[in-house]
Amino acid sequence: MTDRIFTNAVLPDGRSVDLAVRDGRFSAITANLPIDAATETVDLGGRLILPGFVDGHIHLDKSFVGEPWQPHRPAASLRERLAAEKALLAGMRPTAQRADALIAQVAAFGTVAMRSHVDVDATTGLSHLHAVMEAREKWRGRMDIQLVAFPQAGILTCPGTADILAAAIDEGVEVVGGIDPKGMDGDSDGHLDVVFGLADRRGARIDIHLHEGGPDGIAQLHRIAARTSALGLAGRVVVSHAYALGDVDGAMLDGIARALADAGVAIMTNAPGDRAFPPVLHLRQHGVRVFTGSDNIRDAWWPYGNGDMLQRAMLIGYRSGFYRDEDLAIALAMATEEAARAIGLEVPGLDIGKPASFVALQADTLAAAVAAPPAERILVHRGMVSAPS
Amino acid sequence: MTDRIFTNAVLPDGRSVDLAVRDGRFSAITANLPIDAATETVDLGGRLILPGFVDGHIHLDKSFVGEPWQPHRPAASLRERLAAEKALLAGMRPTAQRADALIAQVAAFGTVAMRSHVDVDATTGLSHLHAVMEAREKWRGRMDIQLVAFPQAGILTCPGTADILAAAIDEGVEVVGGIDPKGMDGDSDGHLDVVFGLADRRGARIDIHLHEGGPDGIAQLHRIAARTSALGLAGRVVVSHAYALGDVDGAMLDGIARALADAGVAIMTNAPGDRAFPPVLHLRQHGVRVFTGSDNIRDAWWPYGNGDMLQRAMLIGYRSGFYRDEDLAIALAMATEEAARAIGLEVPGLDIGKPASFVALQADTLAAAVAAPPAERILVHRGMVSAPS
Repeated sequence: MTDRIFTNAVLPDGRSVDLAVRDGRFSAITANLPIDAATETVDLGGRLILPGFVDGHIHLDKSFVGEPWQPHRPAASLRERLAAEKALLAGMRPTAQRADALIAQVAAFGTVAMRSHVDVDATTGLSHLHAVMEAREKWRGRMDIQLVAFPQAGILTCPGTADILAAAIDEGVEVVGGIDPKGMDGDSDGHLDVVFGLADRRGARIDIHLHEGGPDGIAQLHRIAARTSALGLAGRVVVSHAYALGDVDGAMLDGIARALADAGVAIMTNAPGDRAFPPVLHLRQHGVRVFTGSDNIRDAWWPYGNGDMLQRAMLIGYRSGFYRDEDLAIALAMATEEAARAIGLEVPGLDIGKPASFVALQADTLAAAVAAPPAERILVHRGMVSAPS
Repeated sequence: MTDRIFTNAVLPDGRSVDLAVRDGRFSAITANLPIDAATETVDLGGRLILPGFVDGHIHLDKSFVGEPWQPHRPAASLRERLAAEKALLAGMRPTAQRADALIAQVAAFGTVAMRSHVDVDATTGLSHLHAVMEAREKWRGRMDIQLVAFPQAGILTCPGTADILAAAIDEGVEVVGGIDPKGMDGDSDGHLDVVFGLADRRGARIDIHLHEGGPDGIAQLHRIAARTSALGLAGRVVVSHAYALGDVDGAMLDGIARALADAGVAIMTNAPGDRAFPPVLHLRQHGVRVFTGSDNIRDAWWPYGNGDMLQRAMLIGYRSGFYRDEDLAIALAMATEEAARAIGLEVPGLDIGKPASFVALQADTLAAAVAAPPAERILVHRGMVSAPS
C-alpha cells in the first residue's frame, strides 16, 4: 500500500517526477505515476527537492537558542572561556530543554540527522550527556542523533575525564571525542592512547577537535592517521576543524592528504569566517572524505549560526571559491551524503528504498539553491509533511 | 494629521515604543503613544525594528535574477569574462526587465536605497545606462537609486570610453566610476586624469573598483587619496573592494589608513569569501568610513548573492571575526547609515523627521538579528506596510 504520492517535483538532475512513499520510504520515483483515486497526493508545485540534511558537527548542550540574547564576552584564555561558559549555562534553562529548542530549530530548516558533541569533564560528569540523551529520546523517530563524549577541558589536564569517557561509552555513546592532544593536553601520545584505546576496546568511533595550526597540527594529523591504520579503524575516525590543513601547501599538504586518505580519516570543516581552513577540493582529489556541520550555534563561543545546513553549504562554497555547479553540488553533498558516510549514519538520498525525508524549495537547480538558499521550504520526514504544519 | 501609528515595536536600544508617522516620516517615537480612535494602527507584536537597508554597491545591469539558472563558466582572463558576459546577457530579457527583477528582490529584503554601477564602454555605449534608468524611473518613490557610470572594460584600453563617461554624466548619472588604473588600464595617471577630471569639471562623485593587491594596490590608494585632497573632494570619493588593504599590515596599513581618513576617501567591501579584504575595525579606528554592498548577485561573475543586506552584514561580521554586540552593530551600520553617508544619500534612521522606512523582525536584539538574520520580515516604506502585502 502506498502511503502517499508527492507530485510535480524536480530532482537535482533536473527530471520532473512524482514520488510514491510506502512505510516512510520511497517506493517509486518516476514521471507521471499512475495515481489511484484513494491515494493521498501532495502537489509540490514544481519545486526542487533535496535530500534531508545531515549536520555532522553540532553542540546540543552549549547553545543559547531559546534563551534571551547574551552578548559575547571576550575571554583571555581557553580556561577563562570554559569558566564563563559554565557560569552562563548555570543561569539558563536545563540543558535538556535547551537541546530540545536547538533540535527544533535545525529540524525546521530540513536537518534529519546529526552528530552532537556533548561536554564531559570531571566536574560536569555525565550530566550534559544525560540531558542531551533525554532530548534525543524526545526526538526519536524524527531526528537521528548520534552522540560524541567530548572532553572539552582536556583529558590528561582534567584528571578523571578518561574514566568519564569510558562511562559515557558504557551508557551508549557511539563516539569518543578528543581535543588538541598536544596544544591542550600537552602530551599527544598520552591523549591519543586514551582516545584510541577506548575506540579499540569498546568499538567506539572517534572524533577529535584539532585547532592546532601549521606544521604542529599536521604532525598531530599524521599521528592520528597512523594510529587509525594500525588499529584498522578506517572509516571510523574524524578530525574536526583541522585548521592546519588550511595553513600549509605543497608537499606537506599532499603528504598529509595521502596519509588521511590511506588511513580512512575524514575531515569536518564548518568553513570558519576569519581563519584558514581545509582546502576541500584538494583533499577530495586525494581521496579524503570532507564533510560539514554547524559547529557552535549562538553560544558562549560565538554569536553566529542558525543550524541551516543549506546556508552552511553556501558558506562552504563561498569560503572555498566554489563557482561551478559541480563544486556547489559538492558543498551540498558535504551537508548530506558525505556527512552521513563520514559519521556512519544512514545515507540520505532521493532513491527507491531510501527514507522519504526531503526538502522542497523554489530554486531552478541544486546549484542555485546552494548559491542563494531560499528561506521558504516544505519539509517531508519519512513521507509525512512536517512543515509548513 | 498622523497617517498611521505602529505600536509595540522594540528599538535597537531595547526600548519598547510606538511610532507615529506623518507624511511618510516619523512624527513621534515614544512608549504608550496616545491613540486617537480614528488613527489607523499596526501592531508590530514586539518585533525589533531596524532602519531600511542601504546597498552601497550593486550591479543592476549584470544580474541573472529572474532568468533561468546559468551555470558559471570559468574564464581564463578578464577579457574572456567580459566577452562571455556580453554573450550571456544578449540571450536574456532586456536589461531594464532584469534590473527591475533585481530591484524587486532586494526591496523584499528591506533595502530602501542603493548605488548601482552600470557598465559603459565603447560597444555598450549608454544602452545599459538607459535601461537601468528606465527601471529606476519605475521604482521612483519606492527605491532610492543612485547610478555610477562604470568603465568595466577600462578607459584608456577601451578607446571612446572617456567620452561615454562624460555623456553619462550629461544624462544625470551622479557618479563617475573607475577600475584598476594600473592593473587594467596600465596607466594610473592617465586613468585617474579622466576620472578625477570629470568629477572636478562636472561635479560628479567618484567610485573606483580597485582589485589590485599588495603594495601595488596600496600605491594606487595613495594616488587616489592625494588627488581627492588636491581637488577638495573629501567625502565624495569611494574605493570599492580595495583588497590591498587586506594584504598589508603594520606601518604600510597605518600609513594608507591615515591617508584615506585625511583625504575623506571611503572604502566599500562586500566581505569576499576566499580572499583577504579590508580590516574594518582597524580602518575605522583611523577614521576611515567603511561600508558595504551586495556587489554581484547571480551573474556572469559568480553564482552567489541574494541582495539581503542583513545577510551581508552577517557576512561582514563572520569574515571579520566580529563577536561582540558593538562590532555586530558596526556590521549593520555598514549596510545602513555608513553606506548612506559614504554615497551621499539620505541617512536612514529611527528618529523623528526621518523617513518611516524600516524592517520589523523577530529578534531579541540588533546583534542577534545580524548574527543570524531572520527570514520573515515586515517591511514598512515611508509609513506604508509594503510586505507582507
